[in-house]
Amino acid sequence: MDAQHRDQPAPTVGEVGELDVLDRIVRRLPVGDPMVGPGDDCAVLAAPDGRYVVTTDMMVHGPDFRWAWSSPEDIGWKAAATNLSDVAAMGARPTGLVIALAAPQDTPVTVLERFADGVRLAVEALAPGCGVVGGDLSTSSTFTVAVTAFGDLAGHAPVLRSGARPGDVVAVSGELGRAGRGLARLFRDGVDGSGEPSRTATVASGADADPDVARQRRPVPPIGDGVLAAETGATAMLDLSDGLAIDGGRLARASRVTLDLDPRAVPDAFALHGGEDHGLLATFPAEAVLPGGFRRVGEVRDRAGHDVLRGGEPVPTTGWDPYADWDGATG
Amino acid sequence: MDAQHRDQPAPTVGEVGELDVLDRIVRRLPVGDPMVGPGDDCAVLAAPDGRYVVTTDMMVHGPDFRWAWSSPEDIGWKAAATNLSDVAAMGARPTGLVIALAAPQDTPVTVLERFADGVRLAVEALAPGCGVVGGDLSTSSTFTVAVTAFGDLAGHAPVLRSGARPGDVVAVSGELGRAGRGLARLFRDGVDGSGEPSRTATVASGADADPDVARQRRPVPPIGDGVLAAETGATAMLDLSDGLAIDGGRLARASRVTLDLDPRAVPDAFALHGGEDHGLLATFPAEAVLPGGFRRVGEVRDRAGHDVLRGGEPVPTTGWDPYADWDGATG
Repeated sequence: MDAQHRDQPAPTVGEVGELDVLDRIVRRLPVGDPMVGPGDDCAVLAAPDGRYVVTTDMMVHGPDFRWAWSSPEDIGWKAAATNLSDVAAMGARPTGLVIALAAPQDTPVTVLERFADGVRLAVEALAPGCGVVGGDLSTSSTFTVAVTAFGDLAGHAPVLRSGARPGDVVAVSGELGRAGRGLARLFRDGVDGSGEPSRTATVASGADADPDVARQRRPVPPIGDGVLAAETGATAMLDLSDGLAIDGGRLARASRVTLDLDPRAVPDAFALHGGEDHGLLATFPAEAVLPGGFRRVGEVRDRAGHDVLRGGEPVPTTGWDPYADWDGATG
Repeated sequence: MDAQHRDQPAPTVGEVGELDVLDRIVRRLPVGDPMVGPGDDCAVLAAPDGRYVVTTDMMVHGPDFRWAWSSPEDIGWKAAATNLSDVAAMGARPTGLVIALAAPQDTPVTVLERFADGVRLAVEALAPGCGVVGGDLSTSSTFTVAVTAFGDLAGHAPVLRSGARPGDVVAVSGELGRAGRGLARLFRDGVDGSGEPSRTATVASGADADPDVARQRRPVPPIGDGVLAAETGATAMLDLSDGLAIDGGRLARASRVTLDLDPRAVPDAFALHGGEDHGLLATFPAEAVLPGGFRRVGEVRDRAGHDVLRGGEPVPTTGWDPYADWDGATG
């Protein structure tokens, strides 16, 4: 646990025990409208469509976040937002979340309460009506959160990443590169003399008040635009978690096409390679009127040697690998 | 990572990278029959019933398992089996799993392959037709697995823990106390001179060949009996994860009744307090013919001061708390 947490006089989860911790957390979480909610072996959710979508994502202290750079509210927000974004990227409306959380025993209970507040704030802002329908609380030497999210397709076909066709418009909803710019700012100004993430350095450098850093901490995925894209006949869609180049490469390979991005719409390296924006990348028939916040960023071409071009020039589409690339010692 | 893993010449997940690790794992997992499987932002599952059940559970190295006592196959088996058991305890048939896994970078890839083998073996043995429809792979200094499982109610009402009525029969399917007896054997004979879990001590003491230890490592929940209980009109049901006393207490409090257990059916402390058997505890109308492997272990009485009695004598129904009770230093 980080020094910022140990300073607090609040009791730790080890002192309070599971039942009391659960009680304190559950009352802060969004309830939603499950048929059976938390407290039994399983929750029961309605699937009026006869299908449901499912996604899961784990956030681990160290490779995925640092207490020095993110508050417990930020982590709760991000854990919810990134999973809601995956649901939206299928063209579905988020209907429920389950959260498994493991915290060190010396974690103040207030950290878990604030985490729950962040989940609630994200759900209220991004997917009102969605609830946390179940969960699991464990202990671990590494703070770890695994969220699984569910969604309803409301009669639409799921929008896969494999349906883009030559001639389609490539479009994006949500900002490009802000979260990546925020992360770069933190790596530059939010570290101490030895390069370690430091809250003191973050505050002293003013990075704490940087709007890009704020977006890195609390991404704002355009959840409602997922359903709008499905209704408008999007041919393929993907959540932008690893950046336009990498995620565009995934869509291009799955669809066996090449994406040619417009340099005016994708002006710099952050817009092209910055991760964690959690916008939506979608392709639409050329004649479609782009819905919601979608705007044109390029065009789908016949597959020709490369996954992604920018103004006709090849763009590298490989990137972040949590196993190969994370150096635990230096962040 | 444990010495047993470092001995192996296999490449580590850090050397191989996420995509190759995923490729090696996914081909070992059970496929099931999702409408959309792994590889997109979400999986899509069918819900012909118009409802689905959901449960999530996290297993963390240290408090939940030790490499010294469990093989990677054992952990895969147990992660799947315990979640399948929660689905069964609602009266539902398991239809899908998603698995989020975080491993240290120096974990040999073979450990993850063997984990996947354990998941497959458990699903094939316990819930054939169920598939792993999605997942997430991360890195962590603590080996952590979070499984979320889904199930279909096939038109039956979910069997909650709150429906037991005075006069009902209390019944159990599955063994009582074997997993607890196995754990006690490991704590007695599977430790080195300083009390630390040790594979060498486990093998030398013969505990490795003990059938109770085998059951501790690979519980065999009677998954099919969950649906049978629902069809027979079970009034309440619960997965036996923390032992008959604790889980019986939960059912009794939720139903506002007292359970009176029969000392002949619950003969010793292991049967009463041993955890991790993952059998099913259910209550049935007095006139019901108990289905599948269910057998009578007691009777539901009007609530009278205590949650659980055994032969009329009060039984303590508190127990294991992962936050308050786990001592990381001594196991």
